[in-house]
Amino acid sequence: METAVSHARTQYDQYLEQLLELLRIPSVSALPEHRSDIQRAADWLAADMRRIGLEHVQVIGTAGNPVVYGDWLHAGEGAYTALLYGHYDVQPADPLEKWETPPFTPTIRDDKVYARGASDNKAQMFSQLKALESLLAVHGRLPVNVKVLLDGEEETGSPNLPAFVAAYKEMLQADSILISDGAMISSDQPVIEYALRGVISGEIRVSGPGRDLHSGSYGGSVHNPLQALAEIISKLHDEFGWVKIPGFYDRVVSMTAAERALLRQVPYDEAQWLAETGAPKPWGEPDYTLLERMTARPTCEINGIWGGFQGTGDKTIIPAEAGAKISMRLVANQDADEIAELFTEYVTSIAPETVRVQVTIHAGANAAVTPFDSAEIAAAMRAYKVAWGAEAVRSRAGGSLPIVVTLQRELGIPFVLMPFGLDDNRHSPNEHYHLSHFTRGIATAIHYYHYLAEA
Amino acid sequence: METAVSHARTQYDQYLEQLLELLRIPSVSALPEHRSDIQRAADWLAADMRRIGLEHVQVIGTAGNPVVYGDWLHAGEGAYTALLYGHYDVQPADPLEKWETPPFTPTIRDDKVYARGASDNKAQMFSQLKALESLLAVHGRLPVNVKVLLDGEEETGSPNLPAFVAAYKEMLQADSILISDGAMISSDQPVIEYALRGVISGEIRVSGPGRDLHSGSYGGSVHNPLQALAEIISKLHDEFGWVKIPGFYDRVVSMTAAERALLRQVPYDEAQWLAETGAPKPWGEPDYTLLERMTARPTCEINGIWGGFQGTGDKTIIPAEAGAKISMRLVANQDADEIAELFTEYVTSIAPETVRVQVTIHAGANAAVTPFDSAEIAAAMRAYKVAWGAEAVRSRAGGSLPIVVTLQRELGIPFVLMPFGLDDNRHSPNEHYHLSHFTRGIATAIHYYHYLAEA
Repeated sequence: METAVSHARTQYDQYLEQLLELLRIPSVSALPEHRSDIQRAADWLAADMRRIGLEHVQVIGTAGNPVVYGDWLHAGEGAYTALLYGHYDVQPADPLEKWETPPFTPTIRDDKVYARGASDNKAQMFSQLKALESLLAVHGRLPVNVKVLLDGEEETGSPNLPAFVAAYKEMLQADSILISDGAMISSDQPVIEYALRGVISGEIRVSGPGRDLHSGSYGGSVHNPLQALAEIISKLHDEFGWVKIPGFYDRVVSMTAAERALLRQVPYDEAQWLAETGAPKPWGEPDYTLLERMTARPTCEINGIWGGFQGTGDKTIIPAEAGAKISMRLVANQDADEIAELFTEYVTSIAPETVRVQVTIHAGANAAVTPFDSAEIAAAMRAYKVAWGAEAVRSRAGGSLPIVVTLQRELGIPFVLMPFGLDDNRHSPNEHYHLSHFTRGIATAIHYYHYLAEA
Repeated sequence: METAVSHARTQYDQYLEQLLELLRIPSVSALPEHRSDIQRAADWLAADMRRIGLEHVQVIGTAGNPVVYGDWLHAGEGAYTALLYGHYDVQPADPLEKWETPPFTPTIRDDKVYARGASDNKAQMFSQLKALESLLAVHGRLPVNVKVLLDGEEETGSPNLPAFVAAYKEMLQADSILISDGAMISSDQPVIEYALRGVISGEIRVSGPGRDLHSGSYGGSVHNPLQALAEIISKLHDEFGWVKIPGFYDRVVSMTAAERALLRQVPYDEAQWLAETGAPKPWGEPDYTLLERMTARPTCEINGIWGGFQGTGDKTIIPAEAGAKISMRLVANQDADEIAELFTEYVTSIAPETVRVQVTIHAGANAAVTPFDSAEIAAAMRAYKVAWGAEAVRSRAGGSLPIVVTLQRELGIPFVLMPFGLDDNRHSPNEHYHLSHFTRGIATAIHYYHYLAEA
C-alpha cells in the first residue's frame, strides 16, 4: 500500500491544482442564485471520477440539487463494500467584508488554502477521491468495493436525499458508510466520531403595526415587534442554558458511565475552547463537560435576527416586523418532527396577543449513533496510526449530517466518521484547510481501505 | 387679513410648485452621503426667504448642518416678536421597496402629495413661510415682528443647535416660539400642543466569539450574542410595559387632575388607534389612557436590531456579534443625561460575563412644557376657529423637538405648537401631506399673526 501512498506524493501538485479548481466554483446551496454553480460543481466531479477509473458515474437529478454517483465493484466474490459519502455544496460566504481574500479565489498562505468550502467539505471529500485515484493508478484495483455518493444539499439539510436514497436503495447497498467531514482535535490528535447531532431549523416572524410607526407619536401604546421577539427568544433558555421548550428533553438518551469515561479520554480543555472561540467565558449546562455540551447535548440557537433600522445614526421608529432564524441540535432519540412541533407550540403559547407571531419550520434530521467498538472503527484507528503516527480517540461530533441518519435507516449499516480537518473557520469568513492534512488525509484513506479488506 | 388669505389662494399653484421643488431635495440628516443635499435645501430656502421680503437672511454654518435664519422687524416700537422654528431635514427613506412612488419624486394622488419629509416637516414649515409671503405681498408688512429659524438636524436630535442658540441668543430673542410640526387629531379636529416628550437614543452591542462559529461544533458551550442581546432587551420592560431601568421614573412629574380632565376632552379612542397603527391590540401601562401613554408617559423603544444570518434559507452559525438601537422618550422633569447614565448602568449591570456588552449614547434632549392657558395659545385657538371652522383642543405631543427645550432654556419664553399635519406616515414609507391642509395651514398662520398682534 505504500506504493499508492508514494504515488499520491508524486501526484501532489496535480491533486492540489485540481482541488483549487473545485474551490473556485461557488457551489452555495442556500442561495438560489448559485443554482448553476451547483450544477457546474457536480459535472466537474463526475468528470474527475470517470477520469480516475470509477464506473457508472452519473449526475442524478433530484427535486433539488443533483447527486453525483460512481462506483468500483470488482473486489471479488463476497468482498466488502464501502459507501463513501461527501458533499460538494458550501455555506454562504457572507459577511464578505470579513474575508482577507475572496472566498471563491482560493489563496495559499502559510501552508493553508483559504476558500469557502475548503474544509467543509471539498478538501476532505476530495482527499477520499484522490486515495481511490492513487490506488487504482498503482494497483489497477481497490482492496474493497467502493460506492461514491456526493450530496449537493448538505448545508441546507439534504431535503431531497431521503427520497433519493429510498429510490436508489439497491444501488447504494453496502456494508458501511465512510465520511470524511468535520474536525480532528488537533493536527497531532486524530479523532473518529461515532455520533452526530440532528438538527431542525426554522424562523420566528413577529409583526405588529401595519407599517413602521413614529416612536414619538405611538411609543408607549404599541407592543414593539423587536421587543416582543426579544421577549420570546429570552424564554427559550433558562439562566443555566437549559432549553425551556416543554418536552424538549423527554426522549433524550442519557450517556452511560462507560461512554462518559471514553469521552474523558478526548484531550479537550477550556484553554483550547477559549483559543478556538475567542469568547470571554464558556456557557451552558453546568452538569456536562464542554465536550459533552458541544456534542452529546441538544441545543437551541439563534442564527440570525433582524428588524427596524440598522443603518448609521438614529431612526426613531417602532418597526412593523421583526424576525429570527432558529436552529436546534438534537441527540438520540429526539425526533426532529416532534421537536419542531413542540417548538412551534411553545412559541405560539408564549406569543402575546399584542403582536402577530408566525413560526416556519425548515429542513430537519435526527441524530445518528453507531457502536464505537465496530470492526470499521478499529480499521480506521489503524489507518490513522500509520498515516499520522498517533492513536485516534473516539468521540462524538457536534454537527449534523442528516444523510447519515437516512442511510442508516434505509441500509441498516454502521458508519465511520473519519475527519481530516481542524476547526478551519468552517461556516465563518476565512475558511481554510491545512495542506499537510490534504496529503495525510489521502494516505489515511488509502490505509483504511486496506485494513477494511483485512477486517 | 382676508385679503392675505385670498392672495394665498390665488398664488396656490406657485406655492405648491415651490413645495414640490423643496421635496425633491433628499435632505436626509442621518446619512452622511446626503450632506450636499442638506446644503442644497438650506440654500434653496434662504433664496425663497429673501425673495418674499425677509431680511438678514443667512445660511449659518454649525459643527453639523447649517441653520437658515431670516427676519422682518418693522412692526414698530415695542411690538410683539414671534420666533418661527421649522426644520428642513428629513428621516431616511428606507425601506425603499415599500414606497409606492420614489420618496424624493413628489407625486400627487387623491389630493395628497407623497414624498419623504412632506408632512415632517417641509409642507408644514413651508405653509408658515407662505403665510409670511402672502402678508408681505398684500400689506407690505407683518402684524408682528417675525424671526425665522430653520434647523437642518432635527431628525438627528439637533446636536449642534444648543451651541448655535447660545451663540446667537441676542439675534433670536423673542416673546414666544411658533412651530408647525406634528399631527392634528383629524382633518376636522385641530389640536394645539403644550408639551413635547424628550428623547435620548443609543446602541447596545453584544459580542461573544471572535468570529461566527459553526453552531454544530460549538452550540451548547457558547453564549450566543443574539440570545444574550434578546435576554438584555427582555429585561427593559415588565409584562405591563413598565420600564425596569432603576430610577427611570424617579423625577417624572405626575399630571394634575385638571390636566387629565383637559386631555379627556381630546377625541381619541381605541378605534382610531387601531385604524392608525394596524396593530392587533393596544399595549402599555394599564393605569393610563392611550393618549396619555402616547404623550405624557416616558418610554423605552427598540428601533432596530441586527446580527447573524438574515438571508434566504439557513446558515447554522453562532454569530460573533449583535446590536440594537434604543431610544427613550422622556417627560418633565426627567434629565436626558441622567437617564442615559441610568440606562447604561442598568444594561451593564445585567450583562452576563459570558459575552461582552457595550453601550453607546447618541443625542439627547429633555421634555418641554408650556402653560396651556397662555395668550399665544388663545390666539392660536382663534386662528384655527376661523381657518378650520372648528374648536381646537389642547393636548400633549408624543414626539420630541429638542430645540424647543433649548430655546425655552436660553430665551425663557413660552411656545405654541400649531400642527397642520395628520399622521401622514411620518417616519414611514409613503409619507404624504394633504393638499387641503396646505392651504388651510397657510390661512391659519395668517390669522394667528393678526390675533397675536391684538393679544
